[in-house]
Amino acid sequence: MSIYDSNSYFSCMISVSIIGAGNVATHLYKVFKKSEQVSVVQWYSRDLNKIKSYKNAVAITDQLSELELADIYIIAVSDDAIASVSEQLPFKDRLVVHTSGSVSIYDLDKKNKRGVFYPLQTFSKEAKVDFKKVPICIETIGKKNLPLLQSLAEAIGSKVYKVNPDQRKALHLAAVFVNNFTNQLYRIAHEITESEGVEFDILKPLILETANKVQHLSPYLAQTGPAKRNDKKTIKRHLKQLESEHHKAVYTLLTESIKKTHGR
Amino acid sequence: MSIYDSNSYFSCMISVSIIGAGNVATHLYKVFKKSEQVSVVQWYSRDLNKIKSYKNAVAITDQLSELELADIYIIAVSDDAIASVSEQLPFKDRLVVHTSGSVSIYDLDKKNKRGVFYPLQTFSKEAKVDFKKVPICIETIGKKNLPLLQSLAEAIGSKVYKVNPDQRKALHLAAVFVNNFTNQLYRIAHEITESEGVEFDILKPLILETANKVQHLSPYLAQTGPAKRNDKKTIKRHLKQLESEHHKAVYTLLTESIKKTHGR
Repeated sequence: MSIYDSNSYFSCMISVSIIGAGNVATHLYKVFKKSEQVSVVQWYSRDLNKIKSYKNAVAITDQLSELELADIYIIAVSDDAIASVSEQLPFKDRLVVHTSGSVSIYDLDKKNKRGVFYPLQTFSKEAKVDFKKVPICIETIGKKNLPLLQSLAEAIGSKVYKVNPDQRKALHLAAVFVNNFTNQLYRIAHEITESEGVEFDILKPLILETANKVQHLSPYLAQTGPAKRNDKKTIKRHLKQLESEHHKAVYTLLTESIKKTHGR
Repeated sequence: MSIYDSNSYFSCMISVSIIGAGNVATHLYKVFKKSEQVSVVQWYSRDLNKIKSYKNAVAITDQLSELELADIYIIAVSDDAIASVSEQLPFKDRLVVHTSGSVSIYDLDKKNKRGVFYPLQTFSKEAKVDFKKVPICIETIGKKNLPLLQSLAEAIGSKVYKVNPDQRKALHLAAVFVNNFTNQLYRIAHEITESEGVEFDILKPLILETANKVQHLSPYLAQTGPAKRNDKKTIKRHLKQLESEHHKAVYTLLTESIKKTHGR
């Protein structure tokens, strides 16, 4: 997927300004600071309190009007605020990107050069993030600014994928299935084990192995179990065993889904 | 969860006979052979071809009547065949266990001492199994034979959990959610990415991280995303984006499920 070898093009550091103080902004700040190929010029938050503990390491501001020159401005704010923040930027013709999986590149104000720098991973405030395991999907209008975004992603050790708007939307939606929905299945499993006073811990190795298996095998080939075998006896017993109507509904729908996939 | 320290009780090797030639039987055979605390007396399969490649390493047979004395007989056959195989055993008062998550201990013929030795993990024919990552759930009638089953599980490095029949049933059902159903969500994600010609590979780190996260955080606390936030705009856009009615149905039900869990 590499567009070109970045090192042969850029020998200078890439200067960035970070706009926003949420999880993504904070993790990006930390990994940029560690990279020798990136310099963080400024960090903006409308609430200075959120970033003031970093003030000895980086210039902080709560005024968009104070933003200085940088190669890339990274807007890492909530989806709803991206358009408005980009409008308020007091400069033009510079490279401005957002980090969202679902917001259109055209939501950025067209007075600047526009791009998307979307890290496809789940971030929590506390957990450390290894950016080697964070694929970064990049998008620009025209090809001119792709190399710079690619260099930035590579500077933090990430794998870079050039995507188009439809592909990014598809990835964001698919991510809801493999992250939010999968996590909800873990939650239901937790409810089921808890109701019998048995430790959820016992399921943790299976959860990991299920995720591991599809790293080198397609989900289609990795499938096993009563639904795939259309083992009616077990399916019936499971449904009888489930006490919550809501759990029954999830069981029924996903069993049908598996049967459909495997032609049962 | 340790009932006692096994080493102080058993200094002799535990002798086992394996009945069956499927995935579980084969993986158990291999790990038993590697353990210095276990000796495999015999391996039975009704189809000798399935195990004949092991004939120089272990006594094989296709006759239940030829089974010799062992501390534990492990019936690792399909659920439907367990009762019938246990009836056909030509001896009594010995310890006979099955390895199923869903079959009752009482399905074993009562002429022998009965137990369950249920490895809660997904096994595939090719993949190597690290039994350190396979929790083994054990069950007996009365407490007398628990220590021997516990020693056997510990001899292969597994974590042992003593469960009752309802707990084992709950675990087996919960395993369907975290393994088969989760894998089906991966499959749907694969369909979504494929339809836009984007690589499923991009999702693999997220799949792993989602599984990793609940190793030290409850699924409840690990949840994020549009359903948890009740972000109606994103949910509506996602539903519009999904082309398959079937994908829409899964999206809707799991979104409702998350909203329910998080009181939205």
